[in-house]
Amino acid sequence: MKFIRVLLLLTSGLLAATSAAAIAGPEVASTTESKKKAGPITRIDPTFWWVGMKNPKLQLLVYGPKIGASKVSLKYDGVTLDGTQKLENPNYLLVNLTISANTKPGKLPLEFQGERKIKYEYELRARSTEAGRVQGVTSADFVYLLMPDRFANGDPKNDVVKGTMVNRVSRDSMYARHGGDLKGIEDHFDYLKELGVTAIWPTPIVENDMPKASYHGYALTDYYAVDPRYGTNEDYVNFVRNAHRNGLKVIHDVVLNHMGSKNYLYLDQPAKDWFHQWPTFTRGNYRDGTVNDPYASAEDRKLFNTTWFDTTMPDPAQENPLVATYLIQNFLWWVEYTGLDGYRIDTYPYSEPGFLMKWGKAIQDEYPQLGMFGETWVQAAEGVAQQAYWSRNAFPAVNGFKSNLNGVTDFMLYYAIQDALNKEAGWSEGISKIYYTLQSDWLYENPNRNVVFLDNHDLSRIFSVLGEDVSKQKMALTWLLTCRGIPQLYYGTEILMKNFSNPDGLVRADFPGGFPGDNVNKFTAAGRTAPEQEVFTLVSKLANYRKAHPALHSGKLMHYIPEDGVYTYFRYNDKGETIMVMMNANKQDKTVAGGRFAERLTGFTSATNVVSGATIPDLKTLRIPAQTAWVLELKR
Amino acid sequence: MKFIRVLLLLTSGLLAATSAAAIAGPEVASTTESKKKAGPITRIDPTFWWVGMKNPKLQLLVYGPKIGASKVSLKYDGVTLDGTQKLENPNYLLVNLTISANTKPGKLPLEFQGERKIKYEYELRARSTEAGRVQGVTSADFVYLLMPDRFANGDPKNDVVKGTMVNRVSRDSMYARHGGDLKGIEDHFDYLKELGVTAIWPTPIVENDMPKASYHGYALTDYYAVDPRYGTNEDYVNFVRNAHRNGLKVIHDVVLNHMGSKNYLYLDQPAKDWFHQWPTFTRGNYRDGTVNDPYASAEDRKLFNTTWFDTTMPDPAQENPLVATYLIQNFLWWVEYTGLDGYRIDTYPYSEPGFLMKWGKAIQDEYPQLGMFGETWVQAAEGVAQQAYWSRNAFPAVNGFKSNLNGVTDFMLYYAIQDALNKEAGWSEGISKIYYTLQSDWLYENPNRNVVFLDNHDLSRIFSVLGEDVSKQKMALTWLLTCRGIPQLYYGTEILMKNFSNPDGLVRADFPGGFPGDNVNKFTAAGRTAPEQEVFTLVSKLANYRKAHPALHSGKLMHYIPEDGVYTYFRYNDKGETIMVMMNANKQDKTVAGGRFAERLTGFTSATNVVSGATIPDLKTLRIPAQTAWVLELKR
Repeated sequence: MKFIRVLLLLTSGLLAATSAAAIAGPEVASTTESKKKAGPITRIDPTFWWVGMKNPKLQLLVYGPKIGASKVSLKYDGVTLDGTQKLENPNYLLVNLTISANTKPGKLPLEFQGERKIKYEYELRARSTEAGRVQGVTSADFVYLLMPDRFANGDPKNDVVKGTMVNRVSRDSMYARHGGDLKGIEDHFDYLKELGVTAIWPTPIVENDMPKASYHGYALTDYYAVDPRYGTNEDYVNFVRNAHRNGLKVIHDVVLNHMGSKNYLYLDQPAKDWFHQWPTFTRGNYRDGTVNDPYASAEDRKLFNTTWFDTTMPDPAQENPLVATYLIQNFLWWVEYTGLDGYRIDTYPYSEPGFLMKWGKAIQDEYPQLGMFGETWVQAAEGVAQQAYWSRNAFPAVNGFKSNLNGVTDFMLYYAIQDALNKEAGWSEGISKIYYTLQSDWLYENPNRNVVFLDNHDLSRIFSVLGEDVSKQKMALTWLLTCRGIPQLYYGTEILMKNFSNPDGLVRADFPGGFPGDNVNKFTAAGRTAPEQEVFTLVSKLANYRKAHPALHSGKLMHYIPEDGVYTYFRYNDKGETIMVMMNANKQDKTVAGGRFAERLTGFTSATNVVSGATIPDLKTLRIPAQTAWVLELKR
Repeated sequence: MKFIRVLLLLTSGLLAATSAAAIAGPEVASTTESKKKAGPITRIDPTFWWVGMKNPKLQLLVYGPKIGASKVSLKYDGVTLDGTQKLENPNYLLVNLTISANTKPGKLPLEFQGERKIKYEYELRARSTEAGRVQGVTSADFVYLLMPDRFANGDPKNDVVKGTMVNRVSRDSMYARHGGDLKGIEDHFDYLKELGVTAIWPTPIVENDMPKASYHGYALTDYYAVDPRYGTNEDYVNFVRNAHRNGLKVIHDVVLNHMGSKNYLYLDQPAKDWFHQWPTFTRGNYRDGTVNDPYASAEDRKLFNTTWFDTTMPDPAQENPLVATYLIQNFLWWVEYTGLDGYRIDTYPYSEPGFLMKWGKAIQDEYPQLGMFGETWVQAAEGVAQQAYWSRNAFPAVNGFKSNLNGVTDFMLYYAIQDALNKEAGWSEGISKIYYTLQSDWLYENPNRNVVFLDNHDLSRIFSVLGEDVSKQKMALTWLLTCRGIPQLYYGTEILMKNFSNPDGLVRADFPGGFPGDNVNKFTAAGRTAPEQEVFTLVSKLANYRKAHPALHSGKLMHYIPEDGVYTYFRYNDKGETIMVMMNANKQDKTVAGGRFAERLTGFTSATNVVSGATIPDLKTLRIPAQTAWVLELKR
């Protein structure tokens, strides 16, 4: 999620200008007519469930006019009604079930006895045994992050869906919908495979039926539905299946911290204590450090954890166990339903710390192999330790929180690579920033589970950050694909898409060729300029080489203190693979004596440049051109 | 210790110019004639010992021509000869003793049977029971760091001592001796008391009989002797006793990592494996991060830990248990001999990690109350975690090292206060740097044991860093005396002494009035300019107030996220004391609403400005002048 704009407002003191119109409070409970099923029960969440889950408990949130007053009964072999629970709002009822191990799939008949008797057949499915589901995401992967609305439009029929709050696509507006969809992504699986991608991370595909800027996807309005502008729920299931058949994994973008103000749960709130209530909209402080600050005031903590992320994004009260259960079940549901491979968790530090631990454990208990990483947008000034605090790390719990998250988005390395390429090399500046940042990896349980990136949908595109310098772009990408961790590419970085994050829409431009009527198609070599093709080829070569060479993604790392603006590191394993990476950040060529690297070079006599194919016949003296990153496969 | 000059050389690429003349190797064993006792045993280290130490073991290093071939015998109630050990150099012999608990003090007769019989009466003293010894150093203290050669010359007779390598004082040269001594410090105990100081930290007072720049004191030439230019060993014992009588503690500056090349142990080495030997002088890399870097090469680690700190400073091989024992016994000896209160450990990270743990444990086992903190000159880019790694912290051992050091010199806060006063306030810049640095205190076991400072003998003086801005100087000093930790003042900062650290001699100027013939005496109010007096008074008032108000040194800390360039924090305890500190880093006055601080302000109605004595009648709205730090005692 984005808060740079907020930052700019805050730091420039313009925040007082936040208009009264932006003040958000519970709206009138109009209900969302389009979602109502026929009959007096509007919906039950989870919309269906499975028999044979590890955790036999299930809590149904039943929603319907005055359903709260009902008595519930059921009769189904293996299923026990543990009880019901009324909420403040009479339109809700919680039904607690236990589904014993050998229960058969089928239709569970629920009877609600209130003013009249209502019957509801709740579906209990069999768990899928299809191969290739929930593969996980590891450092062997290469992740491609894209915005489904902006990547490719495969089905113009779903550009505008009747009953949603937006009735047009407007490709000339950065904040409007552009029409991209799941089909559009599937149409370009071959492109992604050519590029060497192994995992796709679309920004959220779940329903965002909001009147404004819904394209970004982070204001969920229905936790159980794919946004109809992207496809149906079944389309998404097929999308994951199709991706798996193509050797591509799918990472689902999870939003825990907030929801859209048009979510039915907010429009007609189950109870006041399901949301953090503020008499008027109160901007949070966006300071994750308050959570583990030994000196934080209660006020500053509250302003971090319980404020709304933005005016249209209510903050669920995750410390409420009922809210926690709702969110846990929803994210078990998506894995079981689709077989997806990984979760990226938006605004991870903003959620209530106790809830995060509970949620993480519940998901991992059920799906230990699932890939999970959190967005932890820490500031450079906070340091690696703060980033490590949000993932599995070496410290005991701090202020009661000990993260069980496998990995984080590695913002500290993101800051470092920019310094490395844009600042003069010094003792701890420029290229040395990468050295120092990686030095701090002792703070993580396993830093190789961090996601490494050069840009994303909230950040200025790296090509612009690097002054549109193709040499630097190639260095950055070479580093991305050889550093420790899970590399993530933002769509279009491989074809030199550019722009700055303010206003943020600019970095969310359409992929040229992805939309009907595009006059250029950069999905094909023919549509790319020479520099674009050069960069595309670099990524493709390195990513495909990486796939085939475990040392580069799962091997050990050894690096040497940068000297004279040159940083050298090795990826190696005990199977004899050693790959040497040398980055010369200088504007001049440099000659480097190999003797210093004897610990890793001994036994090798020459090397092959993985990208160019050139042979380096002698490792004693290496002459590396200016602004170049070499990937050298060492030869005996 | 200093390495900025080295840094400058390294980063400017001038290092190749390090002259061949600087190459250091073992010198010819000329022996140091002046130290030789009459007779065939030149010396025994420790020079004497005590009965009744917790650890009954004692290892004597006996030094004398061909003494190594001797058989040793002794007869003394309670003392057992455990054995002897020859070293490579025949002029040394190790004698291992056990001194049982109830052994009486006296002269232990040692007999050495070699070519002829030698008798040596080794002194076993009774431990002192004098009150006030080894008081420790805590956050209740206010430490005054001074260089004994530069503070005050109390005894011109010892300015030049016959037999030492320097035969003159030259106050016009920053690298020569100026004549300051222990007596000079004692002569100004009243000044220090007026200033509110409670502990004195002189840079090393141990013998540095080196031909060049011996005044700095970090090149020890005799581990068991006070430098005769400062006084005798007995003078130092009396100095500590006199300090204690005046309510002043003494911190002894410990150099473990290196020694002077004129040390007898190096001139006539016990064995090659007592030193890290390099065929030619090899500059180290000065990167403490190699110790806990998961990716460091053996080469980079070696170049940190085993290189010489400078051309004239050999590196003892502390991993050699015999060297370790020598150093451990020496630093037990100084505590027991003098009753000093704390150890500041120079270049702490440079010593061998295993040795540091062993040394720290041995000292603390014997003197649990001793104050101990290490110089951990980490770079800003390394972050608080790296600084915390060198002190007691929350992590398990990393690369086998887990520090047992109580505190460190808080370089991270030193960087932060400079940014706070010299850079524009921003989200994480300027005054926010203090906030973020303190936020990271969760990484320490107890950050209140860190030593906080604005400058020292290796750094540019804060007044120069702050552009000679008296308002900023006052803010910095106010912060120093109200922040968590043990505040340390560098001599002369209270009277606006200035200068930059390059060349470093400039920040080591004489205290005006400390030397015979000085035409101005800033030890007295009459000798100070108005701004100097203003700053002196501020320090004196705050330091004396701090002494009397435990909340300010041992109370809890609560701080609020800086807003609009104003940073507010509270020191408070459960005895009803609450002190509010507000720092306005802006060039404009600011109005701050007190409501935000309700958690700490509730119950208080007014406040007194501790420095000016002014009353603040209303806490609801606070108008703080530009570039001001307020210390407010809250009133009910």
